[in-house]
Amino acid sequence: MIELNYDNCIDTNIGKEGISEDKFETLAGQAAECLEEYKKSPPGFMNLPFRFGEAEKIMKEAGKYKNFKNIVILGIGGSALGNTTLNDALNHPYHNIAEGRKTPRFFVLDNSDPSRTEALSQVIDPKETLFVVITKSGTTAETLANFFHFLKLLKDSVENWKENLVFITGSKGFLREFSDMHGIKTFPVPEDVGGRYSVLSEVGLFPAAVSGINIMSLLEGAADAAENEHVPVNYAALQCYFYRKSKNINVFMPYSSRLASAADWFCQLWAESLGKKESSGPTPVKAVGATDQHSQIQLYMEGPRDKVITFLGVEEGMPELKLDFEGHFLNGKSIRQLFKAEEKGTAGALAQAGIPNMTFKIPEINAYNVGELLYQLEVSCAVAGKLLKVNPFDQPGVEAGKKLSYKILEEG
Amino acid sequence: MIELNYDNCIDTNIGKEGISEDKFETLAGQAAECLEEYKKSPPGFMNLPFRFGEAEKIMKEAGKYKNFKNIVILGIGGSALGNTTLNDALNHPYHNIAEGRKTPRFFVLDNSDPSRTEALSQVIDPKETLFVVITKSGTTAETLANFFHFLKLLKDSVENWKENLVFITGSKGFLREFSDMHGIKTFPVPEDVGGRYSVLSEVGLFPAAVSGINIMSLLEGAADAAENEHVPVNYAALQCYFYRKSKNINVFMPYSSRLASAADWFCQLWAESLGKKESSGPTPVKAVGATDQHSQIQLYMEGPRDKVITFLGVEEGMPELKLDFEGHFLNGKSIRQLFKAEEKGTAGALAQAGIPNMTFKIPEINAYNVGELLYQLEVSCAVAGKLLKVNPFDQPGVEAGKKLSYKILEEG
Repeated sequence: MIELNYDNCIDTNIGKEGISEDKFETLAGQAAECLEEYKKSPPGFMNLPFRFGEAEKIMKEAGKYKNFKNIVILGIGGSALGNTTLNDALNHPYHNIAEGRKTPRFFVLDNSDPSRTEALSQVIDPKETLFVVITKSGTTAETLANFFHFLKLLKDSVENWKENLVFITGSKGFLREFSDMHGIKTFPVPEDVGGRYSVLSEVGLFPAAVSGINIMSLLEGAADAAENEHVPVNYAALQCYFYRKSKNINVFMPYSSRLASAADWFCQLWAESLGKKESSGPTPVKAVGATDQHSQIQLYMEGPRDKVITFLGVEEGMPELKLDFEGHFLNGKSIRQLFKAEEKGTAGALAQAGIPNMTFKIPEINAYNVGELLYQLEVSCAVAGKLLKVNPFDQPGVEAGKKLSYKILEEG
Repeated sequence: MIELNYDNCIDTNIGKEGISEDKFETLAGQAAECLEEYKKSPPGFMNLPFRFGEAEKIMKEAGKYKNFKNIVILGIGGSALGNTTLNDALNHPYHNIAEGRKTPRFFVLDNSDPSRTEALSQVIDPKETLFVVITKSGTTAETLANFFHFLKLLKDSVENWKENLVFITGSKGFLREFSDMHGIKTFPVPEDVGGRYSVLSEVGLFPAAVSGINIMSLLEGAADAAENEHVPVNYAALQCYFYRKSKNINVFMPYSSRLASAADWFCQLWAESLGKKESSGPTPVKAVGATDQHSQIQLYMEGPRDKVITFLGVEEGMPELKLDFEGHFLNGKSIRQLFKAEEKGTAGALAQAGIPNMTFKIPEINAYNVGELLYQLEVSCAVAGKLLKVNPFDQPGVEAGKKLSYKILEEG
């Protein structure tokens, strides 16, 4: 199972900016109580790991779409980040050009930048493409704009255009109405699950299943996470402690290129769930090890003491890639050894400088562990919301910009 | 030319968290003096825009390599971010799979994650690949590890393996010695230019030229930027003002998928140059519009008042993509209109909430303007360093982690 190592947070290890064992015990106790409260009346996302029946149906359906050359996700925010995360973590890192690929090329169009929409139109043939349109409200403007664009191309090139569409949407809204009218294959988004907590629902599972990911295993990992409650409890307790100690920046730094998108996913989860008032809103920052040692570590080491750093470390399953170059100090070492030494060296150097950091130790990157990881982070976030006394499931602050944008669009 | 609109920073527009016109005039004056000081004895990067003769030679050389199927950059930090930035901004957004592509597929291997190195080995044939190894010191461990890995594959598959290699490196160090011994085509990194300021040197120019980017135009844009000194001066003055007002987070949010990597490049430039002591180190955060409206804007709108936000807006040259769906409010509008309305709506809503933000207005994405943009940001950074009284050209804080990593590697 995934463990959270927080030795580098404890004051006896890192000095005065650390947390004392006593204080930690108290806060972890409070966090555990928050989790108990949730369990009395679980928020929707907590039911998702146990929907094995639904997942089986999704797998069966997904099988029908595997012969498409491309799958294109039209979605944004929580209707895109989970999909990118699963694809990047669990498919070949160069999936779309890998030889021997048995599932469709995978694209996520998660912006309304017309340059990108046009560019995607140039590299896919709509005939050979499954478009999966994801929006819980059924009304998201960016997603519908891209949908209208590709719908036109699709209708121009295929008679049975409906066969190239799958919707994942709530029970109301434009997309649901369109689906009812035209009979489009549609999966529901559970009503009590918001976008950023939806990766283990139909939203994440259907596209993952089409692209060959073992979604049963993904759910099993998440389901088993419940056995390891100290992980999200401890993470939430530590993060909230350091946030209250004026460390307003939470750097999330996987030592793994395959988990880089998981950091984007985490940044949405954390920012949108906890950024609710002047006294609540740690800013999550994505970094990737070892790459950002050459970009951000200077700032983390010597800059202001306003950060707490979360590493993800992968323990096993990476290729060794032994190096053979006589006379050089890397001779006889492997790229994996270098990579792991860098992870440990960076965490250790930060600890020596008194900067709190912790590491999720992931046994290996596979569907089971990724399911467990994402679920543990969701639980952490929900618990942190209770500790910071905010509602981690709404996002009222996005309305003002939306309204102003629509006004400008109408007038322009 | 690129302009910086800072209306949404001024107190009469956004309220008490804004800057007064008077204060701004004073600070901009100080920033201008800093720039004048630099001009008396220009740091190396300030000479780069004027090296048209070198650029011509680079273009000529680059022509010899255009028939490779792949170009793979082996580099990390400042020896990778500029390359990714130029490729993403100026080549097709799906360059590696675009039909009609006339230049090699473009890969940047900027990590020592063995999973990624192995994956890249699986999708390229070394025979058909130009490896461009970039490290100024000639000793960067991640880069050399990947180099040793691919060198072996190359030697195993091509007799004239030297023809598949180009180095870009300083006058000393392992790579220079290897080059001298084996006669590898090698470009210099100007001695007085550090990695994060090197995009307009051989480091950025040679790979860009191979991939068909007009590097003369890139330099011209940077050279002409000198005519528009108020842009970097004002940007540095504003950023330093807000940083001193406890806004320790600088969000950098291009409304452009093509400029997303420019945000990564900026984050290195800003973090590594200014993150030098407890009183100096704004944390740069990458966001991308409109995507991150659905991820980060909730936090920016309602969370703590610890941020200043920089937008990049592209004025012209985007495709229109008119939408045609009767009955829907998007009917008759274009995706470009929606995108621009979102950019303006988001900036406006933040301003209404009293949160300072500014926008670089970029006439169009092309080599000339990208050269201008990157150079203006470099000048801004150098000026900000002087204002914050730190050396923006060194990075002493990365040594501790490096040393510890090597120790762990040796012992492991």
